[in-house]
Amino acid sequence: MANLYNITAAKGFRTGGTTCGIKASGKPDLMIITSDSPCSVAGVFTTNKMPGAPVVVSKRHVRNGKAQAIVCNSGISNVCTGPQGLADALTMCLQTGEQLGIDPADVLVCSTGVIGHMLPMGKIEAGIEKLAPKLAKGPKADSATARAIMTTDLVPKSSLIRLQLGSKTIHMGGIAKGSGMIAPNMATMLSFITTDIAITPILLKQVLKRAADVSYNRISIDDDTSTSDSVLILANGQAGNRLIDKPGKNLDAFEAALTTLCKDLAYQIVKDGEGATRVYRAQISGAASLKDANRNGKTIANSPLVKTAIHGNDPNWGRLVMAVGRSGAKVKPDKLDIGIGGILLCKSGEPVQLTKAQLAKIIKHMKSKEVLLTVNLNLGQGEAQWLGCDLSREYITINADYTT
Amino acid sequence: MANLYNITAAKGFRTGGTTCGIKASGKPDLMIITSDSPCSVAGVFTTNKMPGAPVVVSKRHVRNGKAQAIVCNSGISNVCTGPQGLADALTMCLQTGEQLGIDPADVLVCSTGVIGHMLPMGKIEAGIEKLAPKLAKGPKADSATARAIMTTDLVPKSSLIRLQLGSKTIHMGGIAKGSGMIAPNMATMLSFITTDIAITPILLKQVLKRAADVSYNRISIDDDTSTSDSVLILANGQAGNRLIDKPGKNLDAFEAALTTLCKDLAYQIVKDGEGATRVYRAQISGAASLKDANRNGKTIANSPLVKTAIHGNDPNWGRLVMAVGRSGAKVKPDKLDIGIGGILLCKSGEPVQLTKAQLAKIIKHMKSKEVLLTVNLNLGQGEAQWLGCDLSREYITINADYTT
Repeated sequence: MANLYNITAAKGFRTGGTTCGIKASGKPDLMIITSDSPCSVAGVFTTNKMPGAPVVVSKRHVRNGKAQAIVCNSGISNVCTGPQGLADALTMCLQTGEQLGIDPADVLVCSTGVIGHMLPMGKIEAGIEKLAPKLAKGPKADSATARAIMTTDLVPKSSLIRLQLGSKTIHMGGIAKGSGMIAPNMATMLSFITTDIAITPILLKQVLKRAADVSYNRISIDDDTSTSDSVLILANGQAGNRLIDKPGKNLDAFEAALTTLCKDLAYQIVKDGEGATRVYRAQISGAASLKDANRNGKTIANSPLVKTAIHGNDPNWGRLVMAVGRSGAKVKPDKLDIGIGGILLCKSGEPVQLTKAQLAKIIKHMKSKEVLLTVNLNLGQGEAQWLGCDLSREYITINADYTT
Repeated sequence: MANLYNITAAKGFRTGGTTCGIKASGKPDLMIITSDSPCSVAGVFTTNKMPGAPVVVSKRHVRNGKAQAIVCNSGISNVCTGPQGLADALTMCLQTGEQLGIDPADVLVCSTGVIGHMLPMGKIEAGIEKLAPKLAKGPKADSATARAIMTTDLVPKSSLIRLQLGSKTIHMGGIAKGSGMIAPNMATMLSFITTDIAITPILLKQVLKRAADVSYNRISIDDDTSTSDSVLILANGQAGNRLIDKPGKNLDAFEAALTTLCKDLAYQIVKDGEGATRVYRAQISGAASLKDANRNGKTIANSPLVKTAIHGNDPNWGRLVMAVGRSGAKVKPDKLDIGIGGILLCKSGEPVQLTKAQLAKIIKHMKSKEVLLTVNLNLGQGEAQWLGCDLSREYITINADYTT
């Protein structure tokens, strides 16, 4: 696990997590993050057409580019809950705003967990009232926050990065959760990032979108897209750097740092995939276009047969052929190269004769914690990297052995 | 298992299966089906862009609408094998044609099994030479044929249907194989259908395409599309009915019968899905279009989280909400109805309060051999039915616990 000092490493942020009683297990289920000054804000949200009420509300609240707090519960996702669900999400913003003395429209709200249940608003309201005055800085508060958003996650996920802009040190910390898109009854990829950089909301939005595209949007555990996925970033400007309001090297440096942070969190999510024992990286090159490279990467990251082959240390590259062929991307059978762990198994669409030593090396590589799968379509310049995790019996156990 | 008397029930067909030695297990791995007179032929083939050499050859051989035999091996799929693979597929046609005294261009060829290995042509040629003179009619020959195309299938799959057209009785029999799209190393959905109806190739092609669309193309075991999928039908006209050469009630009757046969075979494939213990039927209605209904059906039939919920008898309808939302189809959250086993769990996008008796009834239904999931989008007239099977630990065992 990464450094637990994370979201309050940036100046001016406080946080905390608690147990308000949503989960039968009695585990932490409520958190608040806030800045003591207004922030530029940006968010990327699920493309699922049945988004939860909190997604609807948060999308609205990020629109003006300004926010100051995030409130989030786990255990119930407040999805498919009709007008009452929408009212409950708004109430969470209202009450958090009231307790913190900020505009409720500057509060973002997330919920993760079972779909189709109403939030126990009494417990949540009491929880917010109890938690808000106790928000603090430091590893203990950060830890409690990272834990309060977990559902089937086995470990909390967090990351911290520092960036020097001239004489100013920028801090950026993030937490994330997610391990299956919808676990026994609980769900969702969530990530919250705090930073003290000074940047305009418009640029923050652009940079977050690009960073999310090459990190959170390049991973797959089970191809099921949650109704609650949200990535939120708050930037309060307290680092004192000159406001980044146009493209240039400062923006580039920030984008590089944010991308690194998001990739680290995305990697932690895949590594903690439900039942996962191993991560694999699908490195696509030579695709006719970037879109085609992503089609290939996504299909390989999603394929149950690739996932089970990885689980069984089986260098069955035929499954990669199958995945490439069904991805929808342009492919010329006599140009396709496929490798595992840097050793070519298929060259120009035909099997490579391997020595016993090479085969042994490949199988040894497949037993390592991260397996590298390379696909070169030899058609163009399209490149992409996707991360997947293996599919184990444990995934079935986690997702089937729940009874109402 | 259906009646084993199947593909030679139609007049004028002979068949046989044998072991030529491709499979290490020593199980049957080669079969031939032939008619003693020329047939109208039609085929539908995989859309995978890395099709095997046999798919390339058979597509070419069905083009003129005439054929007289099918030769098929299991154990090796002859996919990703370059020019040599193409030559091998053609050699199988040549030798079968020679042995049967028919034009090699009237022979269709299929292979199913591991990708990226060359066929042992010596064994296959010896097998064809031995098998061709022994082709016969009757349940014994039909059984041997159905078994010779199996890979990870646990049971052979076959079906027979009779149809009265005026004074003439039409026979139509089919066999199929397929249980995971690509199993340990073996693969593919194959189906071969024989009939003695007299019909033009053009109409046969249209009818087969429509029948396949609502049967084989409405099932999912693991969302992985094989490089070898093929459905072939031979119609030799020996039933003596007046040639069907235009639309009308005879064509309609034939289409209905063929559709029933294909649906029966498709059901058998899902039921024998790798590791499957239970089939589920996703019944979509009220979609904005047929395309949208199929998007919903396919997503539900493919979703690992729906599959594991079915496996665990978990009436977790939130996973259906998730699947509907990510399917790409139009959806209005406040119009969505979802039911399991005929009991509504979600009405107009909000949870229905169930009695304990209702919940018990749903869970009891989920433990039955076939689970009914209903989704009504209440937007239009689009309807579709898809079949899926549950995802069990056994799927992982079959697909992971293979080591080279």
